[in-house]
Amino acid sequence: MPETLDDIVTRTSELLAERDVAALSTLMAGLSTTNAVRMLERVDSAQRAVLFRLLPKDDAVVVFERFDATIRSELFESLRSDDVIALFENLDPDDRVELLDELPSNIAHRMMLGLSPAQRALTAPMLGYDRGSVGRRMSPEYVRLRSDTTAAEALDAVRRTGPDAESVYLLPITDDRRTLLGVVTLADLATAESTTPVGELHSSHPVVRADSSAEVAARLCFEHRSPAVVVVDSEQRLIGILTLEQSSRILEEAEDEDAARAGGAEPLRRPYLSTPVLSIVRSRVVWLLVLALSAILTVQVLEIFEHALAAVVTLALFIPLLTGTGGNTGSQAATTVTRALALGDVRPRDIAAVLFREVRVGATMGAMLGTLGFVIAGLVYDWHLGLVIGTTLLSICTLAATVGGAMPLIAKKIGVDPAVFSTPFISTFCDATGLIVYFLIAKAVLGV
Amino acid sequence: MPETLDDIVTRTSELLAERDVAALSTLMAGLSTTNAVRMLERVDSAQRAVLFRLLPKDDAVVVFERFDATIRSELFESLRSDDVIALFENLDPDDRVELLDELPSNIAHRMMLGLSPAQRALTAPMLGYDRGSVGRRMSPEYVRLRSDTTAAEALDAVRRTGPDAESVYLLPITDDRRTLLGVVTLADLATAESTTPVGELHSSHPVVRADSSAEVAARLCFEHRSPAVVVVDSEQRLIGILTLEQSSRILEEAEDEDAARAGGAEPLRRPYLSTPVLSIVRSRVVWLLVLALSAILTVQVLEIFEHALAAVVTLALFIPLLTGTGGNTGSQAATTVTRALALGDVRPRDIAAVLFREVRVGATMGAMLGTLGFVIAGLVYDWHLGLVIGTTLLSICTLAATVGGAMPLIAKKIGVDPAVFSTPFISTFCDATGLIVYFLIAKAVLGV
Repeated sequence: MPETLDDIVTRTSELLAERDVAALSTLMAGLSTTNAVRMLERVDSAQRAVLFRLLPKDDAVVVFERFDATIRSELFESLRSDDVIALFENLDPDDRVELLDELPSNIAHRMMLGLSPAQRALTAPMLGYDRGSVGRRMSPEYVRLRSDTTAAEALDAVRRTGPDAESVYLLPITDDRRTLLGVVTLADLATAESTTPVGELHSSHPVVRADSSAEVAARLCFEHRSPAVVVVDSEQRLIGILTLEQSSRILEEAEDEDAARAGGAEPLRRPYLSTPVLSIVRSRVVWLLVLALSAILTVQVLEIFEHALAAVVTLALFIPLLTGTGGNTGSQAATTVTRALALGDVRPRDIAAVLFREVRVGATMGAMLGTLGFVIAGLVYDWHLGLVIGTTLLSICTLAATVGGAMPLIAKKIGVDPAVFSTPFISTFCDATGLIVYFLIAKAVLGV
Repeated sequence: MPETLDDIVTRTSELLAERDVAALSTLMAGLSTTNAVRMLERVDSAQRAVLFRLLPKDDAVVVFERFDATIRSELFESLRSDDVIALFENLDPDDRVELLDELPSNIAHRMMLGLSPAQRALTAPMLGYDRGSVGRRMSPEYVRLRSDTTAAEALDAVRRTGPDAESVYLLPITDDRRTLLGVVTLADLATAESTTPVGELHSSHPVVRADSSAEVAARLCFEHRSPAVVVVDSEQRLIGILTLEQSSRILEEAEDEDAARAGGAEPLRRPYLSTPVLSIVRSRVVWLLVLALSAILTVQVLEIFEHALAAVVTLALFIPLLTGTGGNTGSQAATTVTRALALGDVRPRDIAAVLFREVRVGATMGAMLGTLGFVIAGLVYDWHLGLVIGTTLLSICTLAATVGGAMPLIAKKIGVDPAVFSTPFISTFCDATGLIVYFLIAKAVLGV
């Protein structure tokens, strides 16, 4: 397609202005799914509601399933009730459950009642699992095989029932009581002799319990390079699969959240340019307020040392440099450990190893920066002040790296999102403790 | 497998201490690929070299391909030369090129000379593309179809040549001159009537030029929910595919980099707990030094206002609170925009829209925090100081949000990684400008 997304958006706006519904319908019908999604994310919500209704029915479902959570629920509430019912019926069960979680509970309840018995039977059990668990994000539609089925028969089964399943790239093998015996990939089937029973082809693939964390299951899927993860109940009975596609969606949400929280904000859950200003404010202001209120601690610390400050005003000049360096060192450690936790490279019980590592890293960097600070401050001001700055840098770096490394592990241990503790809180904490260290050293060396 | 990773690591250490090579070989042969990778990442590099050599030959290649970049090159250099040659010959071309990029150039050159002609012919063209381009990360091994081939014949072709190809989930269709005509997925083939020509099955899938960015191609793969992206040369001739698996590896590296840089450090490119302390120091100290040196700016700013500080020491008490709030507001904006850039939701040319959004967000939050600051400082100290603090908070938040939103876009425009500008630099910049604003307002209101 030679047209760029910008051309499409421009053309759509022109046609909307001219109210040329026929031309708009043709344009919408000609778009690839991805372009339709991106274009609709770019326009405002009123235009989105109009344009979405012009999509061919089959495309509409696929496009809808690709939107971010907030856009889905917003759009859903703006549609006419008969469109809503048809759309809801045609969604994949996993997308349906996600949508239900976003909708106001009275609407969600009404939608479930309007569902066909078959779709309700697929959806209702998923709602029994906790939010954040894989049971709520899996797909209950898959192609199930028996172990004595041959490769050729299995390919036939895929041909017959495939289009209804969420993925045919991973096919679970069970006995008659749905107990999981193994899995076979479509690639295994396609490259096997046609008479080989699938039981002989089965390869090792990740299996998770339905109540496990969806994020952990999604990482497992990628880590094992598997097209899907099989989901079982407490009795090892097959109840669904979590596809690579859904896994990538889950991980992207998790990374959105981590990235936003590392920057001291909540994730937007929709594209930036189509988020209203007040929603952006809402995603940030609580954090900013909490951080500002905890920064009042630094005012109180400085008040304690006001006499020293009044005696040697020069001490004030270094406050932002010292607190900044402490904050930076703390963030570095916290970011590294948070990422290692997310990837499973580090677990809360490794705290001793992490602390031992970070103390040494912090002390090494502190020694380097401290020496530099000693020389520069010594040359420009005097050597006593140089000693204060140098020693403070050494202490602050060691302290900040250790605290920064420990915080995410402690957060994880007590069940708080480690990303919350990575950058902003560490900075505030390091500011306050760093100031105490600074003035204690200054008092000792300068005798103020 | 009932054993946990910890059990495996403990058992391995015991056997290593007893030098029981036979038992170690049995243990290594019984591990799944994923467990072998995780265990070997956990032990130190000397143990890793010993244990890796005990892996069955076929497993060794698969395990090797899963390691992080730094571990690969370290391990590679520690192996005996005949093991090295066999391993290098058996790597997939994309993994081989990645390894070559990590190795010292004399070793890399020697390895290329030792390669068989067939493998060299696959590898050499990839080395002609820039680092960071998809041409260097794609796989040149795939199953290519002609458009008049039937679905059944295509499945036969997959059965015959599949095991050699990197992925059989996406099959490119070309004419005799290798010009790309379309693609067909294995799922499409498996669910089609066996006599249907593949030319009629072909669906729309992403195509990229070999010199495009690997990260952009990888995102495209996920965005289109495609099992692979097709890579062509400037004349639309097929030269490779970038699989979903490789895409996820590329995106994980990019996210490692973004996460590390947002925290003011370079990515480690290996698991945290197996990284030597000095490597961690190296990944952080340059950044910390640059940030500390640029923070000397804040010392100089404060020197200019030293008289005001000496006259009203109370002004010093609020320095960390004000610079901290400015830094936090700036980071929030920078993090959001950096993430939006990475996801393609925002482009550098959207700068006007971003600035207009961030000015309003910053001013709104500044007004809220400023009112609070005015009241608290007014009640505790006096209303003149309250006015200074309130007005400064309003100004700093507006300024910081605007600058924080603009910086990543400017960075991208001039070809620098936007993540570099997200947290740490914004903080330092906001510290310095925030202090200037603070003391200018203080001078005006308090007349010092």
